[in-house]
Amino acid sequence: MLPPRSVLITGASRGLGLEFVKQFLQVPTPPEFLFATCRNPDNAKELQEVAKSSSSITIMKLDVSEMNTIEEAKKLVESKVGAGGLNLLINNAGINKKVTLETVTPDMMLDTFNINVNGPLFTTKAFLPLLLQAARSSTPSNPSSAIVNMSSIMSSIARTVTSDAVEYRVSKSALNMLTKILHNELKDKGIHVGCLHPGWVQTDMGTAKAPVTVSQSVCGCIQVMSNMNAENACVLTDYTGNPLPW
Amino acid sequence: MLPPRSVLITGASRGLGLEFVKQFLQVPTPPEFLFATCRNPDNAKELQEVAKSSSSITIMKLDVSEMNTIEEAKKLVESKVGAGGLNLLINNAGINKKVTLETVTPDMMLDTFNINVNGPLFTTKAFLPLLLQAARSSTPSNPSSAIVNMSSIMSSIARTVTSDAVEYRVSKSALNMLTKILHNELKDKGIHVGCLHPGWVQTDMGTAKAPVTVSQSVCGCIQVMSNMNAENACVLTDYTGNPLPW
Repeated sequence: MLPPRSVLITGASRGLGLEFVKQFLQVPTPPEFLFATCRNPDNAKELQEVAKSSSSITIMKLDVSEMNTIEEAKKLVESKVGAGGLNLLINNAGINKKVTLETVTPDMMLDTFNINVNGPLFTTKAFLPLLLQAARSSTPSNPSSAIVNMSSIMSSIARTVTSDAVEYRVSKSALNMLTKILHNELKDKGIHVGCLHPGWVQTDMGTAKAPVTVSQSVCGCIQVMSNMNAENACVLTDYTGNPLPW
Repeated sequence: MLPPRSVLITGASRGLGLEFVKQFLQVPTPPEFLFATCRNPDNAKELQEVAKSSSSITIMKLDVSEMNTIEEAKKLVESKVGAGGLNLLINNAGINKKVTLETVTPDMMLDTFNINVNGPLFTTKAFLPLLLQAARSSTPSNPSSAIVNMSSIMSSIARTVTSDAVEYRVSKSALNMLTKILHNELKDKGIHVGCLHPGWVQTDMGTAKAPVTVSQSVCGCIQVMSNMNAENACVLTDYTGNPLPW
């Protein structure tokens, strides 16, 4: 499906999100519009630096837990992309409180679910008209519109052999189901919907002990996205393209 | 693992929960303590009728979304079962708003998650000391303590080919992950944790169009529970014992 004309990334102030912004500037045909969204643009110093190097980047406030910021971002994107719509939405913003069964509270469960599941769902709903607009120019073998939800191997029920990170694991399994539901709803409308495990990555979330660099992970994720098609969409896939069980 | 000396069922005022109460009274060795819990015991007329026929039934208020009612119920159960602890917890209470992608709101997602996932999690956490007490007398091949989460085929990501009931499906996939996490945490402590698909049942939730009667479903579920062991625990199983994919 690549190269997309327009891409929106949530959680772009650091980690994987920031690296997506950097690497989309380096693909052979970079996007004309690269929307880098985060909760606090004023604090996103590194993202601001990156944006200086390219006129295609628009930094925008978008807090996935605040519907009004999603709506405001959608209006801005709409005004920029025009009739071409939005080609690629990467639902990357997420949290991991790493709480245990012993320490978890109802509010922790709800907070994480709100960011990791409601976030992608209501961001997708808001941008759906623009994604459908982009999809109108697509063919089944060459869709021009996609939604990628950043999931995790920790979402895989089959692979879960521990009892740690209860709120994170539960939310990411829920996100996988949401991905499947969106896939079912949108597959005949020219929009591919997939979920990716980025690997265990050297981010704030993954810690420095992780074996995969941020650069390796995002490079792989973009490769996997570029190979998305009607058959392999909506398979939980890692950044090297290997499928994982639900 | 059957026959259990003590059983607690949430959502016991109607549907599957009420039928569990009825059928546990009819097994060859009925439980000595059968705790039938619901949000509004005063309105649970049919349950009250059933309770007249057996001194083993205790009707209790337990709203899975209100922590204080869970704690109160736990105290009452503790005072009744004594050192024997609680043998079987059936997390049956749940809701299905049947909303679509178009009509779903963030609050609907959170409400259903709170009942269908936080409910079983925090009910389990509260009763865990009593379940562990019962498990102390168990052996690996004959555990005397179990937790059964009532899931659904609609939780199966692999089997989901539609986009309906988004909040219900997402919550039940999350519940499956929670079941796996609890299984991992408790399997070496003598507690089996499983999740069941009761079939498409003629309840208020399943509607009269459903092919399976409440009686058939619960009879099958009790059979499956009685065959739970270390190998088949924590497989999503339907009421006839057939495994379903995550």
